[in-house]
Amino acid sequence: MDEVTGAQLIAEALKSQNVEYMFGIVGVPIIEVAMAAQAAGIKYVGMRNEQAACYAASAIGYLTGRPVIVIGGSSDRNQETTGAFQEFPQVEACRLYSKFSARPSSLEMIPAVVEKAVRSSIYGPLCSADSREITQAVRLLRAAQRPLIIIGKGAAYARAEKEVRELVEVTGIPFLPTPMGKGVLPDDHPNCVAAARSRALLQADVIVLLGARLNWILHFGFPPRFSPHVKIIQVDLCAEELSNNVRAASALLGDIGAVVRQLLETVRSWRFPSDSQWWLTLKEKMTANAQISKSLALRSTLPMNYYTAFHHISELLPKDCIIVSEGANTMDIGRTMLLNYLPRHRLDAGTFGTMGVGPGFAIAAGVLEQTQKSAQRVVCIEGDSAFGFSGMEVETMCRYKLPVIIIVINNNGIYSGVDPKTWKEMEKMGDMTTIAPPVTLLPEARYEQVMSAFGGRGYLVRTVEELRSALQESLNNTQMPSLLNVLIDPASDRKQQEFPWLTRANL
Amino acid sequence: MDEVTGAQLIAEALKSQNVEYMFGIVGVPIIEVAMAAQAAGIKYVGMRNEQAACYAASAIGYLTGRPVIVIGGSSDRNQETTGAFQEFPQVEACRLYSKFSARPSSLEMIPAVVEKAVRSSIYGPLCSADSREITQAVRLLRAAQRPLIIIGKGAAYARAEKEVRELVEVTGIPFLPTPMGKGVLPDDHPNCVAAARSRALLQADVIVLLGARLNWILHFGFPPRFSPHVKIIQVDLCAEELSNNVRAASALLGDIGAVVRQLLETVRSWRFPSDSQWWLTLKEKMTANAQISKSLALRSTLPMNYYTAFHHISELLPKDCIIVSEGANTMDIGRTMLLNYLPRHRLDAGTFGTMGVGPGFAIAAGVLEQTQKSAQRVVCIEGDSAFGFSGMEVETMCRYKLPVIIIVINNNGIYSGVDPKTWKEMEKMGDMTTIAPPVTLLPEARYEQVMSAFGGRGYLVRTVEELRSALQESLNNTQMPSLLNVLIDPASDRKQQEFPWLTRANL
Amino acid sequence: MDEVTGAQLIAEALKSQNVEYMFGIVGVPIIEVAMAAQAAGIKYVGMRNEQAACYAASAIGYLTGRPVIVIGGSSDRNQETTGAFQEFPQVEACRLYSKFSARPSSLEMIPAVVEKAVRSSIYGPLCSADSREITQAVRLLRAAQRPLIIIGKGAAYARAEKEVRELVEVTGIPFLPTPMGKGVLPDDHPNCVAAARSRALLQADVIVLLGARLNWILHFGFPPRFSPHVKIIQVDLCAEELSNNVRAASALLGDIGAVVRQLLETVRSWRFPSDSQWWLTLKEKMTANAQISKSLALRSTLPMNYYTAFHHISELLPKDCIIVSEGANTMDIGRTMLLNYLPRHRLDAGTFGTMGVGPGFAIAAGVLEQTQKSAQRVVCIEGDSAFGFSGMEVETMCRYKLPVIIIVINNNGIYSGVDPKTWKEMEKMGDMTTIAPPVTLLPEARYEQVMSAFGGRGYLVRTVEELRSALQESLNNTQMPSLLNVLIDPASDRKQQEFPWLTRANL
Amino acid sequence: MDEVTGAQLIAEALKSQNVEYMFGIVGVPIIEVAMAAQAAGIKYVGMRNEQAACYAASAIGYLTGRPVIVIGGSSDRNQETTGAFQEFPQVEACRLYSKFSARPSSLEMIPAVVEKAVRSSIYGPLCSADSREITQAVRLLRAAQRPLIIIGKGAAYARAEKEVRELVEVTGIPFLPTPMGKGVLPDDHPNCVAAARSRALLQADVIVLLGARLNWILHFGFPPRFSPHVKIIQVDLCAEELSNNVRAASALLGDIGAVVRQLLETVRSWRFPSDSQWWLTLKEKMTANAQISKSLALRSTLPMNYYTAFHHISELLPKDCIIVSEGANTMDIGRTMLLNYLPRHRLDAGTFGTMGVGPGFAIAAGVLEQTQKSAQRVVCIEGDSAFGFSGMEVETMCRYKLPVIIIVINNNGIYSGVDPKTWKEMEKMGDMTTIAPPVTLLPEARYEQVMSAFGGRGYLVRTVEELRSALQESLNNTQMPSLLNVLIDPASDRKQQEFPWLTRANL
Repeated sequence: MDEVTGAQLIAEALKSQNVEYMFGIVGVPIIEVAMAAQAAGIKYVGMRNEQAACYAASAIGYLTGRPVIVIGGSSDRNQETTGAFQEFPQVEACRLYSKFSARPSSLEMIPAVVEKAVRSSIYGPLCSADSREITQAVRLLRAAQRPLIIIGKGAAYARAEKEVRELVEVTGIPFLPTPMGKGVLPDDHPNCVAAARSRALLQADVIVLLGARLNWILHFGFPPRFSPHVKIIQVDLCAEELSNNVRAASALLGDIGAVVRQLLETVRSWRFPSDSQWWLTLKEKMTANAQISKSLALRSTLPMNYYTAFHHISELLPKDCIIVSEGANTMDIGRTMLLNYLPRHRLDAGTFGTMGVGPGFAIAAGVLEQTQKSAQRVVCIEGDSAFGFSGMEVETMCRYKLPVIIIVINNNGIYSGVDPKTWKEMEKMGDMTTIAPPVTLLPEARYEQVMSAFGGRGYLVRTVEELRSALQESLNNTQMPSLLNVLIDPASDRKQQEFPWLTRANL
Repeated sequence: MDEVTGAQLIAEALKSQNVEYMFGIVGVPIIEVAMAAQAAGIKYVGMRNEQAACYAASAIGYLTGRPVIVIGGSSDRNQETTGAFQEFPQVEACRLYSKFSARPSSLEMIPAVVEKAVRSSIYGPLCSADSREITQAVRLLRAAQRPLIIIGKGAAYARAEKEVRELVEVTGIPFLPTPMGKGVLPDDHPNCVAAARSRALLQADVIVLLGARLNWILHFGFPPRFSPHVKIIQVDLCAEELSNNVRAASALLGDIGAVVRQLLETVRSWRFPSDSQWWLTLKEKMTANAQISKSLALRSTLPMNYYTAFHHISELLPKDCIIVSEGANTMDIGRTMLLNYLPRHRLDAGTFGTMGVGPGFAIAAGVLEQTQKSAQRVVCIEGDSAFGFSGMEVETMCRYKLPVIIIVINNNGIYSGVDPKTWKEMEKMGDMTTIAPPVTLLPEARYEQVMSAFGGRGYLVRTVEELRSALQESLNNTQMPSLLNVLIDPASDRKQQEFPWLTRANL
Repeated sequence: MDEVTGAQLIAEALKSQNVEYMFGIVGVPIIEVAMAAQAAGIKYVGMRNEQAACYAASAIGYLTGRPVIVIGGSSDRNQETTGAFQEFPQVEACRLYSKFSARPSSLEMIPAVVEKAVRSSIYGPLCSADSREITQAVRLLRAAQRPLIIIGKGAAYARAEKEVRELVEVTGIPFLPTPMGKGVLPDDHPNCVAAARSRALLQADVIVLLGARLNWILHFGFPPRFSPHVKIIQVDLCAEELSNNVRAASALLGDIGAVVRQLLETVRSWRFPSDSQWWLTLKEKMTANAQISKSLALRSTLPMNYYTAFHHISELLPKDCIIVSEGANTMDIGRTMLLNYLPRHRLDAGTFGTMGVGPGFAIAAGVLEQTQKSAQRVVCIEGDSAFGFSGMEVETMCRYKLPVIIIVINNNGIYSGVDPKTWKEMEKMGDMTTIAPPVTLLPEARYEQVMSAFGGRGYLVRTVEELRSALQESLNNTQMPSLLNVLIDPASDRKQQEFPWLTRANL
Repeated sequence: MDEVTGAQLIAEALKSQNVEYMFGIVGVPIIEVAMAAQAAGIKYVGMRNEQAACYAASAIGYLTGRPVIVIGGSSDRNQETTGAFQEFPQVEACRLYSKFSARPSSLEMIPAVVEKAVRSSIYGPLCSADSREITQAVRLLRAAQRPLIIIGKGAAYARAEKEVRELVEVTGIPFLPTPMGKGVLPDDHPNCVAAARSRALLQADVIVLLGARLNWILHFGFPPRFSPHVKIIQVDLCAEELSNNVRAASALLGDIGAVVRQLLETVRSWRFPSDSQWWLTLKEKMTANAQISKSLALRSTLPMNYYTAFHHISELLPKDCIIVSEGANTMDIGRTMLLNYLPRHRLDAGTFGTMGVGPGFAIAAGVLEQTQKSAQRVVCIEGDSAFGFSGMEVETMCRYKLPVIIIVINNNGIYSGVDPKTWKEMEKMGDMTTIAPPVTLLPEARYEQVMSAFGGRGYLVRTVEELRSALQESLNNTQMPSLLNVLIDPASDRKQQEFPWLTRANL
């Protein structure tokens, strides 16, 4: 009668590890654990698909500095090999995807296993770099002709914004954020050279890499995107990441905040001159690029293009909103057109490029805002194809009345869709499985009705005026989510790039 | 200029292995392969989520007797360990989930690897059982007091319906289908004792198991659901499956059609008497159970209960429709209330109990019907929670104008939801993440509008009349999919079961 | 007090699955299980290294038609993740190497898990091929101009020697054994064309493949070792193996004995003519090859070469001895020079080419002979490098007084060693880790003293006379093992081959 | 003609990563790599079994501060799935056993993959602990009543002996080494309380854990072996190891030398009093334990017991010799009876308890000594069962003339053997596989002849005089290895322990 169940033990163990949020599905095998979690004071969000629940959990982890713990059902251990319900070697299957994977051998072991899962996933104690390495790094930095600081997701995760800002402002060095590093310093900071990204990467002779990996997003640090002679000063908490792909001229192992503070103590009052050739060349490129974007943004033909839509969205968004984004062109163009002003206020598909993450990320951010009773809004900007992966989660947003605004940038497909008239003609030609281009979706699909089906506000948007009005109205309404279905030109494209995004050739 | 691309090689290799259907997403990395597939004459269905695409592929495999081949993207091999886009040991990660997992080492190897993937997944050549084993099996069968034939998915997959029908009708033995074995023989066949399932399993002294596993769906063959003295005559193509959990009194390895034919040749004119005590006890139980179902089905109070809804659906469905089903109560009750008359005309969540399979299964069946220009309809009966997992696929159905009717049996949650009024009161109490029961969804969610958002027909259904009218209208309209959102009593439940579905205690 | 221990449960479960032999080490964690096994009537052989114990177990499995079951120790389940003694995910680690891998969840589950392990590893019930496929196969065979039968290990494992002999003798077709298929029919059978192996493989137009895989040992069935137009009639118990690498013109799934009987019933009295061009060309090649071997064998210079040594060994070996062999040249040359006359009387490194298997295999065969009190001897012919891997197992042979004769063909290294004088000179040149060729071992190492250290008989052999005398003496002494250390010319080599053994080029 | 082979690329890549030693077998597929390695200036040691080669490589890694890199053969990539020679998913199979596992995709990728393998396995840059944590740790230490320092293998690996000695001598705290931590400070250091190990662990109230894991060797840090109230100050380079099993009161992440220096800077001149109750209780226990060992060691009955043998060996061994040890009682008793005076001069079976490591470890140490032309000797003390696992490696020792002395402590089995007379009687009773206890080996096996077979010196030792004379003679002969086969009482046992070694009960 007084017996503690496994579900209760799990809930208590999670709570005692300071777990505050749990995301699951509205489905059979997790009901007991979900109820026990609520009883233990953990907030439970029931979602429509395990995928989206995992995305939400990973976003909460990033926003609150915690790891993701996945709890899965399983058949009883003594049913192994019998063909039991949900029989599978789950621990083994998770090995490649996790830092720690275990199954408690008994009820008694649940607390210890949960503790190990949490502890194995967070680098607990802080550590600092070796002081001789710091001296060497500062020597390199002072000798630089074209220095650059790259601010990565690791700096955001380490909550090192204060130290990083001081480093940038004391040294006067230009900086670039990675997509998830945007906002550690504001995108409109005078030292931000994002608008000259390619040139900055290519010509820098010394790069301070703060919690950013030299992976595909940074073109591996390889030519032709980087100078073959670039010297990297790499700061990272993860020893395995140091010198990966490019041998670091200086490898600083430690907490990013602590190491940047060590750098500041050593660099003292040295300052890179603002009238240097390096600053001149960067500023020239930034001005030119801004010009191109502006002319695209101000076009008034209908349907709108990407740049026009983003320009007006950008003008209306409050500086403290959390921006979530995914899609192909939608995410890429949004990265440059939508500015971030605060750390950890941007969530996008990131390193893995997984599509479908948007609604789950937005739900996590929305629940967090709701909990903290802050007035911040969550704006989730989705390509129309991307929205399809987890679109049903709008029901979840409506159920919990989350302060989320979804903006679907709808071009009837991916890269380029087809207009309704052409579509109708294709339909007459026969079997669409053999005719419809694999990039196309149903033209002018009414995604806003998916939102209104569950009581949220839906807007169909074709003009700049409709866009501004619908967005303003949505920002004013904090009680329910809304969805803007922004129909743009199916043939709208990204402006010409100097390099393809994925540098494949030079490995 | 004349160079063959990898995408073309893959498409040609698949085509030469007689692959006719490909399911993917409308997303970046698969566009080239999809276009090459269309060029090679393979039908391509672009879906909204990889999950649903996989479900569709597995259903096409079952319906056409083919394996599922999953083709995944990957970073270039020479980028391994660099942090490349989509870098992951995919082959290794698939090992636990597949019969064969490989990556072609070069373009030249693509055809051989595709050939091996197909061949490893299909038992090609037929084989028959040893003749001494056949004799022994028939001896057992003739000595049975309470014989039973269980028809499993394996019999459907082997297309052995002709042989199985002959075995049942020549011997006069009662039979039970497994959920996916339903329809190999019609559910209204006089020898079908599904309405006395528990009694038949428990009291049978000799069971002929035709392509069915003694797994959780058959309670492992263990007491208290089976007699401890039951003798199993097991027919299976898979040697590892023979004698699993219960040692077969006779283990017959081979193609089910071929082995049943061997049995028929040996059993000759022997017939189990229709006036036996065994038939009497089964018929008595069947009558009693039918009575209970009928009284539930004929209740006229509103909102409807499950049995009423299923009763009227069942009356209208054409005998040759393909029934897809998932959900908790929805699937369980539907298994008994919705009859199947033809083999391979039922697709449900099956052994794995995976939720979200419905729309993908329905799309596969719909594409197949469309290709074959048969007049058969696909009816997809979904719990409301189940529908959420892949609900966005209604856009896919609309895009390809598939002859699919979705019926959402909507009780505002799983097992039991909450009515709108109670929900509003809960909302006033505070944070719904701590208050809303994990089993509840938004009350009276308007799922039919998710269909109408993409041009399909949506129906909100509250009464028997609305149900019959909407279903009839949907059956008449073969040009577009429709969705019936059937609001039933949130407190409606399944009738009392003698045993819980998952027999856990007696292992 | 009356409690049954886990060790006893394991022993009883194995015994009830008819396990008769257990091989382990003389080491701590397995003592309890070993003692329980002995108490249950299982023979226990304590060896010197787990490697050799596994080799022995696999040989017993092959000789008695049983699978290998590996039982491993582990830390307690509730110590997982604590850094416990022998903590490791053993089940997971074995997945890639085994058909079945499991850990009983409790003492109660031990019998079921052992039963599943045994059952999953043996194809129990027999099955036969489809009769239409048989007809097609016989049609192909009758139309052949240059037919060939290849007898593989599968035919030996299936104990199909009676049926295979009948097929060969009724049809008059030439046959080739694979290394482990030697002895299913005697190597001196008039239809055996092993001495014209390359020509037979290359020119055959129809090949009946009986339980042999078209893997590297058969050059994958590819040109230039096979005709590109060869038609394969493949008989195998394993569906996945059929058509691997080369699409079978006829794929016959089933037990080899049963399928060969089906073939015999259909082929009836048809006979391939013994005066055909095919037989003439094969016989001509066999005569030529025999001539070359003979001239090498009869050389009288000292030190001996491989062929001389094998020639004299071959003359003295009784026909019913079990031949074990490993090494590079030693095994390759021995395959042609040492004849087998009985099925399952040859054990060599086989498909995997693992070195070190010899002593373990010999111990298994020796224990079996000892148990059966047959008068058969085990002769283990080892290269000197190969002997080093498990040479300490001579103590095991002495401890159990096994009737094993080890013949080390000692050329001071692998492929070619160095003579003692040259060695001494190299030693003077400095650090041997930088000077000694990686192919060399200590010249004239006295391996026979490793045997005499444990009470067995050791012989140092330099001449033909010493070889014949030592071998005869060893054959006469059935009470203790002996070892002949046969010093041959370090520069002795294999005769010229038409093709390198591993055909790499043409894939 | 000028083409670089894969073997050369591997050798160059290893050399450029400062790899100096390679261990392999004398076997076919590695000859090319071995020769290329020698050509590149890497020392190559050809061994008799891959197992022993791996043990040797791991020992070299420990002795020189390098990781182990395993290079394995494989079939060509384009032969995957064809049944090629040595076809296996090696990368996947190694995942569970390694920090990094990869296969170069082409010759060009070899250097990068080798670089990543080396870098992933070594924590390169140093890091220090957070200064606030240091303050907290020192506060705990100063408040201790019964402090203890445990010196683990990590301290030896980090080469922190100078800092650790200063910490011990400045603070005056008693210390305990783990088995592999022995010698970081000399075992005869006045602060070493190894002779009161159990009492020290049980009663300590604050423990400074320097690079030691709380795993089974330290009884997990759990009661009843530790106080439930003990406070742990844990210093480790590996974040995942901190707080494992017992939550550290102070967790100091960083290089052990750097962190101990941080501690020293903070602890200043504080000193734990040498006249404390804690020192008194430890010294009293040490005196009592020494008494018991001494009385066992001085027994003069024959055959000798373990303690007598170790006592005399200990007296003769030079202080700078490297001690290698394995076996059950042999290793356990040797840990207390054989003192270490220098860091990294002891190699034993360690955490994994793998038997068979001795000869490989000794070869590694011997090759290192030979390279460094130091006069240090390697003494390898083996149980007789342990020696059997890799005993053939004495040929390797002789081939390279390594300065290794093997002492086999021979009790005719494991734990307790059987004397020759009893053995003869057992033999008469019948089949030894059913009679011989699984713990027994051949009585009085002449292991010394295995050494003399290859030109080394072998000694059969029964008395103290023979032992001392043979050991002295071996120490004097630096040109060849020798083996002392020390026959001790088969019934000799370990002295009574307060706790069983593996504390199982209290988890």
